[in-house]
Amino acid sequence: MSDAFHLNCPVPLNDHATVQMAHGGGGRLMRELIESVFRSVFDRTEAAEPPHDAAVLSSREGRLAFTTDSYVVHPLFFPGGDIGRLAVCGTVNDLAMAGARPDALSAGFILEEGFSIESLRRIVRSMADEARVAGVRIVTGDTKVVDRGKGDGVFINTAGVGWIAPGVDISPARVAPGDAVLVSGDLGRHGMAILSVREGLEFEGALESDCAPLADLVAAMLAAGADVHCLRDLTRGGLAAAVNEIALDAGVGIELDEASIPVAEPVAAACELLGLDPLYAANEGRLAVFVPAEVADRVLQAMQNHPAAVGPARIGTVVAAHPGVVELKNRFGAGRILDFLSGEQMPRIC
Amino acid sequence: MSDAFHLNCPVPLNDHATVQMAHGGGGRLMRELIESVFRSVFDRTEAAEPPHDAAVLSSREGRLAFTTDSYVVHPLFFPGGDIGRLAVCGTVNDLAMAGARPDALSAGFILEEGFSIESLRRIVRSMADEARVAGVRIVTGDTKVVDRGKGDGVFINTAGVGWIAPGVDISPARVAPGDAVLVSGDLGRHGMAILSVREGLEFEGALESDCAPLADLVAAMLAAGADVHCLRDLTRGGLAAAVNEIALDAGVGIELDEASIPVAEPVAAACELLGLDPLYAANEGRLAVFVPAEVADRVLQAMQNHPAAVGPARIGTVVAAHPGVVELKNRFGAGRILDFLSGEQMPRIC
Repeated sequence: MSDAFHLNCPVPLNDHATVQMAHGGGGRLMRELIESVFRSVFDRTEAAEPPHDAAVLSSREGRLAFTTDSYVVHPLFFPGGDIGRLAVCGTVNDLAMAGARPDALSAGFILEEGFSIESLRRIVRSMADEARVAGVRIVTGDTKVVDRGKGDGVFINTAGVGWIAPGVDISPARVAPGDAVLVSGDLGRHGMAILSVREGLEFEGALESDCAPLADLVAAMLAAGADVHCLRDLTRGGLAAAVNEIALDAGVGIELDEASIPVAEPVAAACELLGLDPLYAANEGRLAVFVPAEVADRVLQAMQNHPAAVGPARIGTVVAAHPGVVELKNRFGAGRILDFLSGEQMPRIC
Repeated sequence: MSDAFHLNCPVPLNDHATVQMAHGGGGRLMRELIESVFRSVFDRTEAAEPPHDAAVLSSREGRLAFTTDSYVVHPLFFPGGDIGRLAVCGTVNDLAMAGARPDALSAGFILEEGFSIESLRRIVRSMADEARVAGVRIVTGDTKVVDRGKGDGVFINTAGVGWIAPGVDISPARVAPGDAVLVSGDLGRHGMAILSVREGLEFEGALESDCAPLADLVAAMLAAGADVHCLRDLTRGGLAAAVNEIALDAGVGIELDEASIPVAEPVAAACELLGLDPLYAANEGRLAVFVPAEVADRVLQAMQNHPAAVGPARIGTVVAAHPGVVELKNRFGAGRILDFLSGEQMPRIC
């Protein structure tokens, strides 16, 4: 049984309280937790309906996009966001990358016994706020509790559904030689913001996560009339992982112009200090877009006019040569291969 | 970025291997894990398409049902199932309880560093097998890795989408005085199967979880032409929690006839030994159904003809008296209140 956010017995749960095993047991305490922490914040639009094991949504025109991500970021709160904000943006963005207008999200919480109810409330409010910004409803959810030492405060899973308008066809399969590669802003902020907190670096203030929903930006690009071939948000593994995946999956080569890839000064400084490469650092509010070269300027213009794009740039070209391989050219024209890392620069970044 | 189960670089991952932090990093090792453990088992039907941040589904007639559950059951393997089987059945059943035909599932894995790849494979195969039985596709997923001691082997979230045929309207709001209450089989097996393993009880052999998908049983009840008012699967908190929720949410009273509630001998014996009540024990393959009294026999007959119902029975009636309260009548006609427990009899049952 899924826990719908619809309950009839409001009982205030003190902010000094902590999560107990019994909050996951399906009894009165679980109902109180759901009512007091989740129900009062989520799903206001459908509050008149009684609870149900599944949310029921009107179907819309077009195909259905469906995606999921779990979030295990550490620390839970970081400059520019928290795990709740991340859980909404990340899944909204996955829907947007398929060209879908996000409709509804689910939220599944795995709570560790002893976790602070006050922190949980902050996270849940942050999710509700971000959902409002992104124009998406949180309509169904679930709460589980695990013993102390078998979790880490809170893990969140969000799944999402959205609708792809007829005529929109965005997929790695459409990437073709000649396509221009654009990014929506400067890279590496999320990864370096998390790492700067973990490492206790000084420039914390200037280094905030780029965490943001991108669905409206995608809608603006589509409204500009461009035939967008493919979109990809630049999360775990950063730009490097994203373009390598597309090169492999579309069977094309990609050439990137190193000098045109935007990296902000504090990110570059943090990377230098820690010996990291910003092209592998995670973003949570940046995308790459693949479009026919002849409409690249129009798409760039549409991005420049949208607040979710922060210094968008054309950074490269899709080529028929070296399929599956991404080449990075420096300002003197010399190239090197931008490969996958085997593992990661930073664990638990999202 | 969500991890689609579509990758091009098959690399065998040894069964003696264990999960490393790098398997969650977005790099080559994560691609190998996904290819070798997930991709080879899930989503065969759409294997020709390249990976994408979201799965794209054809929309069908009717309204969309959308649900989620996380699974943290301990132990991961138990008589009659495992966490993977549970994760498929539980979410399929939540869709079925809304009267939906399940269409597709997502699967999000939170792996603990050091978890056995061989165990993960068993769980993934179990999910694929159960999805085939339930007639549902696993189309999108995600993998995260947390440090040793910050998880517990594996947690799984599944979300699901399904379609509610026009004319089907199943909701707690429709439960009304006079409705008959039926259950699809004997109660308490899942909870007592888990507990018997944890407690090392002798009768393990005879006590298997009832874990099973119920969507086809629901379809059979609807096909019998009955106006089903409400369905509820009897998971955490068992029959008692489910009927109490419906009594509260529908604003009705419920009277149950204790002698007619089916409980199998080994479940009753285990409960007696451990001082537990089978009416509060979790089930993962049983439902309660609320129907107008005049069609109760027809629905009971439809259940009796279906293999997913195991000794279905009519167990009670919805009344206008004592709204929000469930009364249990013994064979002599004396009643007592069947209340919510405050917490749970058994933690981490699903």
